[in-house]
Amino acid sequence: MWTFDNPPAKQLLEKYHFTLSQQWLDRVRLASVRLNDGGSGSFVSPHGLLLTNHHVALGQLQKNSTAEHNYVATGFYARTPEEEMKSPDLEINVLESMENVTARVQAATRSAKTADQEFAARKDIIAAIERESLQKTGLRSDVVTLYQGGEYWLYRYKKYTDVRLVFAPEQQTAFFGGDPDNFTYPRYDLDMALFRVYENGRPLETPNYLKWNAKGAADGDLVFVSGNPGSTQRSDTMAQLEQERDLVEPNYLKILHARLDTLRKYSAGSPEHAREAAARIFGFENSLKAYEGRYKGLLDPRVMEKKRKDEAQFRAMVMAKPEWKAAYGNAWDAIAGAEKKFRSRYKEQFYHGLDSTLAGLAMNIVQYVAEIKKPDGQRLDGYHEAQLDSLKQQMFSPAPIYPDMEIARITGALELDVQGAGEDDPWVKLVLGGKTPAETAAELVQGSKLADPAVRKQLVDGGEAAVAASTDPMIVQARKLDPMRRELIKWTEDNVDSVEQRAGEQLGKARFAAYGKSTYPDATFTLRLSYGQVKGYPMNGTKAPSKTTMFGLYDRSASFDNEGPFALPSRWAEGRDKLNLATPMNFVTTNDIIGGNSGSPVIDREGRIVGLIFDGNIESLVGDFVYEGETNRAVAVHTAAMTEALRKLYGAGQLVDELEEGAR
Amino acid sequence: MWTFDNPPAKQLLEKYHFTLSQQWLDRVRLASVRLNDGGSGSFVSPHGLLLTNHHVALGQLQKNSTAEHNYVATGFYARTPEEEMKSPDLEINVLESMENVTARVQAATRSAKTADQEFAARKDIIAAIERESLQKTGLRSDVVTLYQGGEYWLYRYKKYTDVRLVFAPEQQTAFFGGDPDNFTYPRYDLDMALFRVYENGRPLETPNYLKWNAKGAADGDLVFVSGNPGSTQRSDTMAQLEQERDLVEPNYLKILHARLDTLRKYSAGSPEHAREAAARIFGFENSLKAYEGRYKGLLDPRVMEKKRKDEAQFRAMVMAKPEWKAAYGNAWDAIAGAEKKFRSRYKEQFYHGLDSTLAGLAMNIVQYVAEIKKPDGQRLDGYHEAQLDSLKQQMFSPAPIYPDMEIARITGALELDVQGAGEDDPWVKLVLGGKTPAETAAELVQGSKLADPAVRKQLVDGGEAAVAASTDPMIVQARKLDPMRRELIKWTEDNVDSVEQRAGEQLGKARFAAYGKSTYPDATFTLRLSYGQVKGYPMNGTKAPSKTTMFGLYDRSASFDNEGPFALPSRWAEGRDKLNLATPMNFVTTNDIIGGNSGSPVIDREGRIVGLIFDGNIESLVGDFVYEGETNRAVAVHTAAMTEALRKLYGAGQLVDELEEGAR
Repeated sequence: MWTFDNPPAKQLLEKYHFTLSQQWLDRVRLASVRLNDGGSGSFVSPHGLLLTNHHVALGQLQKNSTAEHNYVATGFYARTPEEEMKSPDLEINVLESMENVTARVQAATRSAKTADQEFAARKDIIAAIERESLQKTGLRSDVVTLYQGGEYWLYRYKKYTDVRLVFAPEQQTAFFGGDPDNFTYPRYDLDMALFRVYENGRPLETPNYLKWNAKGAADGDLVFVSGNPGSTQRSDTMAQLEQERDLVEPNYLKILHARLDTLRKYSAGSPEHAREAAARIFGFENSLKAYEGRYKGLLDPRVMEKKRKDEAQFRAMVMAKPEWKAAYGNAWDAIAGAEKKFRSRYKEQFYHGLDSTLAGLAMNIVQYVAEIKKPDGQRLDGYHEAQLDSLKQQMFSPAPIYPDMEIARITGALELDVQGAGEDDPWVKLVLGGKTPAETAAELVQGSKLADPAVRKQLVDGGEAAVAASTDPMIVQARKLDPMRRELIKWTEDNVDSVEQRAGEQLGKARFAAYGKSTYPDATFTLRLSYGQVKGYPMNGTKAPSKTTMFGLYDRSASFDNEGPFALPSRWAEGRDKLNLATPMNFVTTNDIIGGNSGSPVIDREGRIVGLIFDGNIESLVGDFVYEGETNRAVAVHTAAMTEALRKLYGAGQLVDELEEGAR
Repeated sequence: MWTFDNPPAKQLLEKYHFTLSQQWLDRVRLASVRLNDGGSGSFVSPHGLLLTNHHVALGQLQKNSTAEHNYVATGFYARTPEEEMKSPDLEINVLESMENVTARVQAATRSAKTADQEFAARKDIIAAIERESLQKTGLRSDVVTLYQGGEYWLYRYKKYTDVRLVFAPEQQTAFFGGDPDNFTYPRYDLDMALFRVYENGRPLETPNYLKWNAKGAADGDLVFVSGNPGSTQRSDTMAQLEQERDLVEPNYLKILHARLDTLRKYSAGSPEHAREAAARIFGFENSLKAYEGRYKGLLDPRVMEKKRKDEAQFRAMVMAKPEWKAAYGNAWDAIAGAEKKFRSRYKEQFYHGLDSTLAGLAMNIVQYVAEIKKPDGQRLDGYHEAQLDSLKQQMFSPAPIYPDMEIARITGALELDVQGAGEDDPWVKLVLGGKTPAETAAELVQGSKLADPAVRKQLVDGGEAAVAASTDPMIVQARKLDPMRRELIKWTEDNVDSVEQRAGEQLGKARFAAYGKSTYPDATFTLRLSYGQVKGYPMNGTKAPSKTTMFGLYDRSASFDNEGPFALPSRWAEGRDKLNLATPMNFVTTNDIIGGNSGSPVIDREGRIVGLIFDGNIESLVGDFVYEGETNRAVAVHTAAMTEALRKLYGAGQLVDELEEGAR
């Protein structure tokens, strides 16, 4: 997960005799995109065709679907430009430039006496840098904290919001094997979707795209992944890891189970309910399996022992040099203290949730009208000047909101809050006001008009006065809860965040001092380049091959009598003889990836696309904390499978022509 | 692994509403066979057709092969009775009757004062019972020790030695996936072979066969396995298990690695060497993987903890009753003492090996002429009256012996002996006499005429005088080593075997007293009936299906680019379109099986054959010590795959007709 400013050129030359050129790097960077739905993608034609995963596109598919047209289930293909379907609230970002602003950020915090002061100063300077950059360039501008504050970088993004869906297969094809096969391998998924990016109402014409290598990757090939890994915690101290293991994960898993339970019950109510809840259930199941894997990793004594040894060695190096000891030596204890503080109010952190789209929007509106009046640097995170455009796209999104599902979700969340935070918790009392969770949920949702984006816009345009005067129950409730929420945020900043940011920066500097910049920083949902090899691995007593074929799709389906998550869509069952079943379907590589990398291109030496990352194997889930190359694998869709299926099963030869035209 | 005298009728009625009839049991028993090559099988037609695994038939295939006709590689099919190929030294046994002789055996040992005396008395009475039975019935008669001596049974077998090969596929088809896939699942192996049993020169006509159910088993079905599980150690005490873990397995694994290394080097010398060594390499690889799995099980703290708890509970029950305490209470300490004694001479036990077929035959001849002069009860094990027929079949087998491979094997074994027992070990000194292992091996093999069965017969017929006069270097050496070998056997009997047999019998009785006969005894390579269900299991983060299909064979082959153990024989590559690829290939069941069950039929409620056991999954390898139903699975070939391949790929429709004729 190397940053593009510090690519692993030396390692590639030594290990693979590959010379990384600036031209190669620039083209890959500009062909790579980040999606605000939480994934990655790449341009794959000169006409703005954007390839990502079906599961990254799923939110937009769901939002474009109706009771009559369930594109999640049936798939979608626009045969003409007119049929291309606009995404309600998708934003994509292309990393235009990177600027090291470490000196400026660190200078601004130097005179701070306390962690609080330092926190405020840092927030202020970061907001200022972002605002200035936005004003100067018009580009989305984010200051990114790398190496826990060892470095700060200003990333400028070109932003596109007119992104139209061109092709998506049936979810059953994209997610064949369902929850059981999720995060496992061998796999047989066509987890792909194609969007087209528009600019000024016309398809984006760009030279910065990845040429299509239809032959795809072969066993042993050197391959690259360019994408936006979400987050890793490999630099966490033992105190943080133990808190994660003993407090955060168990509570988070409890919440995930409860949310999923609520949605499954809702889903069972009717086919329409099932349709509405599908994408959310998918998301929660995915999170649950990922978090269970992470949790298992944390519970593995070998993992913890390795982390403990690493920390002991690092700490001993720091303590051995008086100068380092003075500058960084107290960071571990400071973090341990902050974690202990966090623990004292953990119930409020975890069990003040409403799990509601409407309630979330209401809180955004209430806070927005207040925050924009403040100096930029003093605003709540998410309301800084440079963040407003993206925030508004979300606030005014025309995506449908399902009232019945809102009621079910709020009811479920409140029941869990009562259980988790207790009946006497002030927040719980304030929300329920003596009523049951179900009554409260029904009143809030049935009385609210916020499902209509125009209503939300009116309130925002009306400013504080309009919001104060609103009798919409969702707004009324958000107004009541806002002070309590602000207090908790402030308390957490003062007691946890500020302490950990300061100590984290110390550790980041200490790590540079001790080890140099020989490794990459923890993932931060920003663009990274990883290199690796197409390679099988030892699995359950035998070998997992480096690739699977379409034969395997039919085997696994027939093995389970074509039932449940292993049922084939009729298109695949009936179209079998059209396909060359020896076509490679999925493959695995040793690239170090993590959630957020979904949809990333797999790239060959020549900079051509050979595959599409969509998952990690079960052995990769511990990767949040430690990378282990023996069995940790990234799982990708093979380019050959995409073109074979597009052309022979989906009648989308035209799309393949466009991909291959780009390849010429 | 229930004995046929104590079938799980109650459990079957309760769990599966299945009524086990005596008629059902008798037919299954008489249709089941044991093969002296170390496996099981069953009659599947009224004309003596016997189904077993390819890997059980492998030894005979190898022995019938020549440099010109390598049936191991090419497979074999006899289109006419004349082409059916006689097995050089295969003996099969059908269990005709079972008689409880516990009272007689235990009465004979009652007056013994010491463990030694008891041991001798037991040996004597067992030989007498076997001899009497043989004389009376003409049937092969074995006294079997069950429940560690809690029971003794006289098993009488009908024996057949004219067993002709009818069909075997290419080893590559039978053992697709090779060593990597061995003991794993999902699998895609056609691990089958068909013999025909002859009696008086004509095919055996028998009503006792299993009807062919070509539809095979389906997910969730109740199924039975009738076969001869080799051995388990589930009743071992902790002292025995710890010895196994700390001494036996590490040394045995060392020997397996060395033997395999020797054979692989030999095999690399020429294609003919490779052919000669193939079956032995297969056998050692198989053992190595199995023993590594067992060893891993023993190293698993959870397994040992469970065994420790079980023992503590059992021991506490025994100690709580003064009567039981007096009768059985010292058994654990006695066994621990014997294990300690064993340890004092373990180097001689493990590192006095020659790994030579010729040396083994020479030792048989030297001992045979001496033993048969003694009273039956005092002979070395293997030379009792009732055992002589089978012994002679082995001694005079016309199976080829490869001199170059003999030299390589002896050289490798002696090098290991020097390393393991030490240069100064008397046995090592005696064998080498100052020469190198390679020189010794060459002299022994090149000077010996024992490869010719007629020479062996002459020596045996000539008796002690002929053997004493022989100058054949193999015989000379066997004469020299015989006293040393006898001393070690005697020492082991006096210090280990006699003590452990006595203590084992005490524990067997104690177990009956404490728990009743509610479970089955450890496996003893005698006929057992197991029940279970066709059922997938959780595997590596997902589900293993209850069956695989032929699609999967082609997937796995293509996934590995049709290379190495994943290469398809040309018949399968070229014949793909003839097959219905959705045909079930292999399947898994919860039946409790172990090595020796290979070739056992999988039987449905109606007593029809639905599959052919050929393996256990990797999770089953710990089954030597403990059965764990969550993931332990038996792996079988589906009947549908056998008939599909026989008819459509092998042109053996006639055989399918015979199987199906029986089914009508």
